[in-house]
Amino acid sequence: MRVSTLALVGVGLIGGSVGLAARRRGVGTRVVGFDRDRAALEQALARGILDEAAPDLAAAARAADLVVFCTPVDTIAAHVLAAAPACRPGSVLTDVGSTKAAIVRDLQGRLPAGVAFVGSHPLAGSEKNGPAFARADLFDDRLVVVTPMAPVDDRALSRVTAFWHSLGAAVRAMGPEEHDRALALTSHLPHLLASALAGVLPPEWAELTATGFRDTTRLAAGDPALWAAIFRSNQGSVLAALERLDGWLSRFRCALADGDTAALVELLRQGKAARDGLVP
Amino acid sequence: MRVSTLALVGVGLIGGSVGLAARRRGVGTRVVGFDRDRAALEQALARGILDEAAPDLAAAARAADLVVFCTPVDTIAAHVLAAAPACRPGSVLTDVGSTKAAIVRDLQGRLPAGVAFVGSHPLAGSEKNGPAFARADLFDDRLVVVTPMAPVDDRALSRVTAFWHSLGAAVRAMGPEEHDRALALTSHLPHLLASALAGVLPPEWAELTATGFRDTTRLAAGDPALWAAIFRSNQGSVLAALERLDGWLSRFRCALADGDTAALVELLRQGKAARDGLVP
Repeated sequence: MRVSTLALVGVGLIGGSVGLAARRRGVGTRVVGFDRDRAALEQALARGILDEAAPDLAAAARAADLVVFCTPVDTIAAHVLAAAPACRPGSVLTDVGSTKAAIVRDLQGRLPAGVAFVGSHPLAGSEKNGPAFARADLFDDRLVVVTPMAPVDDRALSRVTAFWHSLGAAVRAMGPEEHDRALALTSHLPHLLASALAGVLPPEWAELTATGFRDTTRLAAGDPALWAAIFRSNQGSVLAALERLDGWLSRFRCALADGDTAALVELLRQGKAARDGLVP
Repeated sequence: MRVSTLALVGVGLIGGSVGLAARRRGVGTRVVGFDRDRAALEQALARGILDEAAPDLAAAARAADLVVFCTPVDTIAAHVLAAAPACRPGSVLTDVGSTKAAIVRDLQGRLPAGVAFVGSHPLAGSEKNGPAFARADLFDDRLVVVTPMAPVDDRALSRVTAFWHSLGAAVRAMGPEEHDRALALTSHLPHLLASALAGVLPPEWAELTATGFRDTTRLAAGDPALWAAIFRSNQGSVLAALERLDGWLSRFRCALADGDTAALVELLRQGKAARDGLVP
């Protein structure tokens, strides 16, 4: 697939990686970007992520046939609504937010005729932020979930799907609510646990951590404001995921308190089976 | 430091790595090993971990001036007690078990005169098992905690300390109880959480996991029987660590339920500060 002009709103780690991947693979003939953070925009130009920095959101939107919104999850719907009136008829809008239902709710029925939005969530990232960490291969062989909203615009859905395929990713379509329930468990809960585990470490014991502690808590290094926004936008599902985990921890607690080796082995065996089942 | 004959009881991942490191660094003139698992013993010989396979525990102990016990944590004290009568006077015994207080309790006052035991715990490992995964560099720049038991045998303590230094590790001495309280938080709790997180993943959502979930759950691939034994031998401290985590998770739960962004950001900020403070 080819895009005449691709516009990126937000040129941090993900936006920057979309730009690099699109240019490397020849997907966007021209890549235009806008970011409120002028330093990030300059850096994106310097790194060859963009052909051109747009002076404002409307200018970026006006130039493009595909606009990808790559800002924090609690700002995406507002940016889409602000950009949409400037978009050309037939242009397609998507995003890379980690939660989808709240965005869809905010956009439902509020876009001008001829402008279509299909949500996306690339399951790729890093605990690092900013265009300095952008990578052209960030989406290679990763999964991007696309979450079309009713009534489904088939043309827009297939354009967004083809776009991610062009960047090297696999694509799966899901409803926004199902996406958010699943990601609460596969992404938001791991982040919360990593953060809690790091949070309870007494500083005097930091020297006694090894690679196990470090891997388990890697996600805790993520940006607090970005992640607070993700948790808030998926409040119900994150609370449900936490409750599910609590139940499992209670089983561990009982087995430990009872000194029940067989029960401990069985819990650990189930965890191992699930972990071994994942692609490495 | 040099050891005339180093004996390894158990030649899995850790025992095998002790052997490889000792031979590569010229620490042991001769490395003798015993393992109940004959296939592991053959593999250790084939990989050059050992100069010689001992026919039984007593033969390994008799041959050596330093014996390192590298079997599961719930078997170490029994192996030490079984081997000690065969040891030469002046020989020093140590181990690599993940918990220390229970072993010390089992050995206190039960060793023959002239035979000294000083517990060790190298903070290095892998979720893999067996001599096939042994690595000569496993201890390079890692910390080994040594846990002398009262009355402290200074000669044995300095020999064990010098031995780990010779293998490339840093060494820190701590009481066995303090070690176990700290490791409950820095090692056993991360393992338990990784396992629980993997355990609550519905199989149909496995496709929706990315590197974050995989890193956070890496430890869950460890051997269930080995880890059940570690948890059991450190029951009280693991339960206390779990309670500490529960308190932190409750703060997350309240902040989420109240939609309190400032509280969420503050919790995530504390987790990030703790994580960023660790050596990468």
